[in-house]
Amino acid sequence: MEWDAWGLGEFRKQLSPQVLSLLSAALGVHAEQSAPPAESDVVLRPSTLTEPQRTALGHVLGAANVHTDDATRLRHAGGKSTPDLLRRKDTGSQDAPDAVVLPGSHDEILALLQWCSDNAVAVVPFGGGTSVVGGVDPERGGFAAVLALDLRRLDALVDLDPVSGTATLQAGVTGPQAEELLGRHGFSLGHFPQSFQFATIGGFAATRSSGQASAGYGRFDDMVQRLRVATPTGSLDLGRGPASAAGPDLRELFVGSEGTFGVITEVTLRVHPIPETTAYRAWSFPDFATGATALRTVIQTGAAPTVMRLSDEAETGVNLALAGDIGGDAPTAGCLAITTVEGTDAHVRARSEEVAALLAAAGGTDLGEQPARSWEHGRFDAPYQRDALLNAGAIVETLETATTWSNLVALRTAVTAALTESLAAQGTPPLVMCHISHTYATGASLYFTVVCGQTEDPLTQWAAAKQAAGDAIVATGGTITHHHAVGRDHRPWMTAEVGDLGATVLRAVKAAIDPAGILNPGKLIP
Amino acid sequence: MEWDAWGLGEFRKQLSPQVLSLLSAALGVHAEQSAPPAESDVVLRPSTLTEPQRTALGHVLGAANVHTDDATRLRHAGGKSTPDLLRRKDTGSQDAPDAVVLPGSHDEILALLQWCSDNAVAVVPFGGGTSVVGGVDPERGGFAAVLALDLRRLDALVDLDPVSGTATLQAGVTGPQAEELLGRHGFSLGHFPQSFQFATIGGFAATRSSGQASAGYGRFDDMVQRLRVATPTGSLDLGRGPASAAGPDLRELFVGSEGTFGVITEVTLRVHPIPETTAYRAWSFPDFATGATALRTVIQTGAAPTVMRLSDEAETGVNLALAGDIGGDAPTAGCLAITTVEGTDAHVRARSEEVAALLAAAGGTDLGEQPARSWEHGRFDAPYQRDALLNAGAIVETLETATTWSNLVALRTAVTAALTESLAAQGTPPLVMCHISHTYATGASLYFTVVCGQTEDPLTQWAAAKQAAGDAIVATGGTITHHHAVGRDHRPWMTAEVGDLGATVLRAVKAAIDPAGILNPGKLIP
Repeated sequence: MEWDAWGLGEFRKQLSPQVLSLLSAALGVHAEQSAPPAESDVVLRPSTLTEPQRTALGHVLGAANVHTDDATRLRHAGGKSTPDLLRRKDTGSQDAPDAVVLPGSHDEILALLQWCSDNAVAVVPFGGGTSVVGGVDPERGGFAAVLALDLRRLDALVDLDPVSGTATLQAGVTGPQAEELLGRHGFSLGHFPQSFQFATIGGFAATRSSGQASAGYGRFDDMVQRLRVATPTGSLDLGRGPASAAGPDLRELFVGSEGTFGVITEVTLRVHPIPETTAYRAWSFPDFATGATALRTVIQTGAAPTVMRLSDEAETGVNLALAGDIGGDAPTAGCLAITTVEGTDAHVRARSEEVAALLAAAGGTDLGEQPARSWEHGRFDAPYQRDALLNAGAIVETLETATTWSNLVALRTAVTAALTESLAAQGTPPLVMCHISHTYATGASLYFTVVCGQTEDPLTQWAAAKQAAGDAIVATGGTITHHHAVGRDHRPWMTAEVGDLGATVLRAVKAAIDPAGILNPGKLIP
Repeated sequence: MEWDAWGLGEFRKQLSPQVLSLLSAALGVHAEQSAPPAESDVVLRPSTLTEPQRTALGHVLGAANVHTDDATRLRHAGGKSTPDLLRRKDTGSQDAPDAVVLPGSHDEILALLQWCSDNAVAVVPFGGGTSVVGGVDPERGGFAAVLALDLRRLDALVDLDPVSGTATLQAGVTGPQAEELLGRHGFSLGHFPQSFQFATIGGFAATRSSGQASAGYGRFDDMVQRLRVATPTGSLDLGRGPASAAGPDLRELFVGSEGTFGVITEVTLRVHPIPETTAYRAWSFPDFATGATALRTVIQTGAAPTVMRLSDEAETGVNLALAGDIGGDAPTAGCLAITTVEGTDAHVRARSEEVAALLAAAGGTDLGEQPARSWEHGRFDAPYQRDALLNAGAIVETLETATTWSNLVALRTAVTAALTESLAAQGTPPLVMCHISHTYATGASLYFTVVCGQTEDPLTQWAAAKQAAGDAIVATGGTITHHHAVGRDHRPWMTAEVGDLGATVLRAVKAAIDPAGILNPGKLIP
């Protein structure tokens, strides 16, 4: 990925006339498309790794797999949140890991963690580097140096069991690599989060990622059958069989552990045959509450489609304004919902008829296939759009939560109000859009996109808005994160999330398996 | 429940002529239906609780909620495994808790655990007392006394959220009580394990129970939304929303913790509207492997019915021999499968057609509704039958495991062989029957029922067979338990299940929240 932006340079976007006019009219942002700073302008804090340490690491991993050059360090200096991207544009001294190491196997990672424990060097596991919560920031904790442990060399399909529908993938396999490796055998993982094009299997597991097809294929944590973890005190191989009553499910302690307990090196996942067919359908609902009730009816009946989403009035309106093709001849008011159903021909036919009947009965107007196909076509573009908007002087950021169905409308209202009040008070009244992208029998996720003008100090500006949103989420009974994970940015709310004793449990587990405390300091654990 | 048998005395069974003839013909057991020992014959080890301790406990819980009489102690002396029932018939001195306490609230349990920590008294949480793995045995660990903490006074429905489909129930609510409390509001939990009539919400959560309708409604651990736990170091309230990426899922550490980390006092669960209709269907498959493949096709297509089971040739044959009505005009060879589909009329129609088409295409012969209805009618009778068989001089016991689909036939073969060899070598060749009762996309459970004649020392006899079966499960890659939990009986295999470092993690969690080690010593944690 680019060092200062999402994704690949060749896909960088220019703002369309529609976006520029909306920015100006709605938010008072008069875009000056300034050129982003050049890499040569960046000043990195010098590496503190000593020459003997560098030599010793070379003995553990091979000298070619230990990098201390600025170009490599800069590309491991953080994730891709809006604050991360704003920090990358800073022309003062920037933080970065003291070295980037590329181990080639589980056993090399074990040896590396042992070396780091013995030498008091912190380690940040690094997959695709797509964190939007500061999960891969090069925090040192109390240590003199920190390494980014890049997992890209662990890129193999280890095993495929076509009968059981499971595949074992190494942690550094990216989303597209996984689909390619599995596709050769007629299988698919079905995990398509926004970060899909760059994020890795290990990262998906370590952060409890959730893909856009979660209604059909489940969250990533649901897919995990087995897990291999390297820690400073040895290895863990967790998960025996599809279900077990053999005590606490320790997989669930390492899934979501964000590199603070160990490094996930291998994951066995549920996979499924590449679908024979996909049925696309879009719907319009008169308002968000009616649409949410319709989605609830579908999921509680047990008729889960593969994808099921609902945009609120603001998001529906903006999407229609920005891309005339989305929505087709649909009404410009109301809320757009999208469903896809994948599988065998017979299954898709039966299931999509059931879903369509339920949505129509719940007040949905059928908009046909096209808006759903358009959504799928453009679903990985939003982060590129964000880069162009940031360069044009806007703030764009997203945040997400989840709650029960009965609390959903109240939570959306509270978070929207908190964001609006905070940013309006700073002189930059925002546009706050929201959608439901993940549904469960008992509740759903809420995903907010915020756009407003930048102040002089956009990092402080957004920090205040984020604080207000997080406090509103906790006060209204939501979870502090549905699929972005905790990292550094959500850590202040972790004690509210799990309680004092829950925090004690997390610290006890860490102390038992990472007694030196070298693993991803300053993240997750309060 | 009866002190020496499953269930209620009024439902005790006599062996039918068919069973007696099968026992004699197949296993050489010539039943002498001896009268079970009377309660007055039982000698309990005297309570070691001192008078000041008893008085102090009375101050914490009220004197009326502290029981040290033999009748109450005997009814908390263990669970309902075959070894438990054989031990109850022992006329030597029997072990029992030193007192049975009945706290009335979460806060009283907190105070009790504090008192026990301060006074070095062990605590065994006790729900329905249906454990078949020694989970409620009155083990003292290193302590001078042990209490059974009976949760029966925590019997309320705390909250029902009909929109989100969740209900909060106190831990002492039994299966039938839960259905009654929820049924008043039009809802059902849909959790029907063999222990349903006596076991409790807290016990289901603490042991990762799985009900017969798990294909439709999920395992009990799937149903858990929130969990309240009292520990010696304070309270935990875990679970915010239907899904979260806020770090490790600590619920999954306490679900399945079997009273070793804390006492579950309240559980918020997914519930669903009482089904409008249920479709019953039975099928015959020519052999177990064909039937297993058919079930796999259904569940991997995503067409999960509510119940889906498959008996192997032995179980099918015995059931047909014992109850002429089961199977109706079905062939006596082959393997019987049963499906039910519950829900709204439209959903059931669509889903049961899809399931039936898949099973027929996979080689199933439709046997109509009747065998499925008969199965449902008699599904809680087996433990009563076991008591009659034990009294007649037979051993009857069950054990269970789970594995991937690709390993399922090999695991069934290995466990059957291990049980058969061990018991044959002891001069009591067994009948080993097996069924699949829980299916998942990636695998299924296997439930074995073993019947043979008793030797002079049936406890030692069964222990050898159990050891052989457990070793075969571990060697063949199964989980040591799919839904019976670990307790005392599966503890020897826990390190094989989670590894040395997994065991270290369990011990670290326990040390952090139960530093005195008073909670259910000798269970689960290796």
